[in-house]
Amino acid sequence: MTDLPSLAVDIARIKAAAARLLGQAVRTPLLRSRDLEAVTGATAAFIKPEVLQRTGSFKFRGAYNKLAAAKIAAPDLRHVVAFSSGNHAQGVAAAAQLLGMTATIVMPQDAPRAKIGNTRRLGAEVVLYDRWKESREDIAADIAHKNAGLLVPPYDDPDVIAGQGTIGLEIADDLAALSLCPDVLLVPCSGGGLVAGTALALRDRHPATAVYAVEPVGFDDLARSLAAGHQIANEEGPVSICDALMAKKPGNLTFPIHQQMLAGSLAMPDETALAAMAFAFDRLKLVVEPGGALALGAALLGPLDLKGKVVVVICSGGNVDPAMMQRALAQGHGLDV
Amino acid sequence: MTDLPSLAVDIARIKAAAARLLGQAVRTPLLRSRDLEAVTGATAAFIKPEVLQRTGSFKFRGAYNKLAAAKIAAPDLRHVVAFSSGNHAQGVAAAAQLLGMTATIVMPQDAPRAKIGNTRRLGAEVVLYDRWKESREDIAADIAHKNAGLLVPPYDDPDVIAGQGTIGLEIADDLAALSLCPDVLLVPCSGGGLVAGTALALRDRHPATAVYAVEPVGFDDLARSLAAGHQIANEEGPVSICDALMAKKPGNLTFPIHQQMLAGSLAMPDETALAAMAFAFDRLKLVVEPGGALALGAALLGPLDLKGKVVVVICSGGNVDPAMMQRALAQGHGLDV
Repeated sequence: MTDLPSLAVDIARIKAAAARLLGQAVRTPLLRSRDLEAVTGATAAFIKPEVLQRTGSFKFRGAYNKLAAAKIAAPDLRHVVAFSSGNHAQGVAAAAQLLGMTATIVMPQDAPRAKIGNTRRLGAEVVLYDRWKESREDIAADIAHKNAGLLVPPYDDPDVIAGQGTIGLEIADDLAALSLCPDVLLVPCSGGGLVAGTALALRDRHPATAVYAVEPVGFDDLARSLAAGHQIANEEGPVSICDALMAKKPGNLTFPIHQQMLAGSLAMPDETALAAMAFAFDRLKLVVEPGGALALGAALLGPLDLKGKVVVVICSGGNVDPAMMQRALAQGHGLDV
Repeated sequence: MTDLPSLAVDIARIKAAAARLLGQAVRTPLLRSRDLEAVTGATAAFIKPEVLQRTGSFKFRGAYNKLAAAKIAAPDLRHVVAFSSGNHAQGVAAAAQLLGMTATIVMPQDAPRAKIGNTRRLGAEVVLYDRWKESREDIAADIAHKNAGLLVPPYDDPDVIAGQGTIGLEIADDLAALSLCPDVLLVPCSGGGLVAGTALALRDRHPATAVYAVEPVGFDDLARSLAAGHQIANEEGPVSICDALMAKKPGNLTFPIHQQMLAGSLAMPDETALAAMAFAFDRLKLVVEPGGALALGAALLGPLDLKGKVVVVICSGGNVDPAMMQRALAQGHGLDV
């Protein structure tokens, strides 16, 4: 028997993140869905709606924890830099604003206008780049260097992972109040910070919980990496409407956590995300973006047998344009509940 | 000085309702909205999202409380009857199903298919009638008589009012945890059961809170009744997209509560409801129907000066068709936040 490699994040770090986030992040509720129970046969099915989080996605948690921890370590820190076309941009901008720092966010020229507008409204300077001709990593590193600023990675960072992990603590606390143990947790996955942190926190309390990442078809780098036993990048070519779930490969820090903590990763097609968005609109009254809805889609239409189980699904973000919601509602969920 | 008339509902009745609803109704969260604060200048602004309640609206609370109380008084009660084209129908159907009763709901032939389908899915028998040729009150009373069933009124009933009032208890508890006192509460209003019950409960704890009903223009029977000092019905003729807020006049039991408890009633145009729906979609990630969004519309665009205040807004329901949401999103909220 070989020793398991030590991981970049432990439960103490996640609890420290929870203390920092208290009063800053929204303590999102755990919503029971009788309709999700009717579809799946689950004994009890719950949604963790991170769409209700500040900035409309879970990304605020990791960003705030990272910046707050950095400020304690270096009280003179005044400036942060990030590259992102979406939810991470808004999370970093909001966290910087709350902590009295300035933020520069490097975004592609063709990012949705709403996301650029949201990021600017949160006080950040937005630097646009040409995603076909320029490297966002180089631009961001250059800005960070010139301004003595801190570069905030989207997922491959212990404090970012720990911040996302606070979601797992909240789920465990809310289930404890109902005297329930979670059998299955389903989590949307891109670089894997959310699923890594949440799995660590929830399985610290409930080691038997089966935690699944859910990825878009064509972006199932984690599923293939888990099967291969090492990190494999996605092939060039595929596209997905799940714009929040398009990281190229599992992170160097997140992947060992995935290997130790996950039951697997499910690859689901875009139609599943659209059906889940329509279900969330119709039955949960929540606005969820495609990538944020993919784990719900896996619960509704995926391969797992959830009958008789206690199931929790994270809806990770809700920053969706009206046109995409219209597309989801035109397709419908097709479920007779 | 004349004595105030005694009211049909007191705080003890609302607390009894809360005990009955425990574990049956969703304990909806109180969501802080920084964007609503930015628009209004409020010190703290909160949304009470009853769209997350069972059946997608607050109506479940009053219906369940009424049926549970009736079953205690008459254990043999097996059947209930209600007339409604929308949210009350679903609330009564869900409550009856949970309590092991059968329900007959009298609905107009031209009610939205989704609402008829939802009501049937909750186990109720739906009886359709022609709203131009038949009287729903007569049909429902006839069915109730033949089946020895209980007729469940939509608002003018002490147990229905008390059930809706549990929302006020929850708001008071959640604000107490934040050491905040509410200055203003805004509540969508049709027959006025929701605003009556909530005002009673919240003002029991905070007598200085200014509670406002919000009605659609053309359906401002409560505003005119309060001004006249007696109940006045709406004129025939006006139409509104706020299909949940079209009761003809204040109830015999609700109106005396309104007279003693409300700071006033605001009449807002339909465009305000659409703007609030778009704001809720974009900034709160909540699906809200026109009538459910009207109080939010009054907070965003209405006549009250909310600067420096602690404000709570009830979003009372989310049962909206995709086409109406599309209309709201096409109009947009037009607010620069």
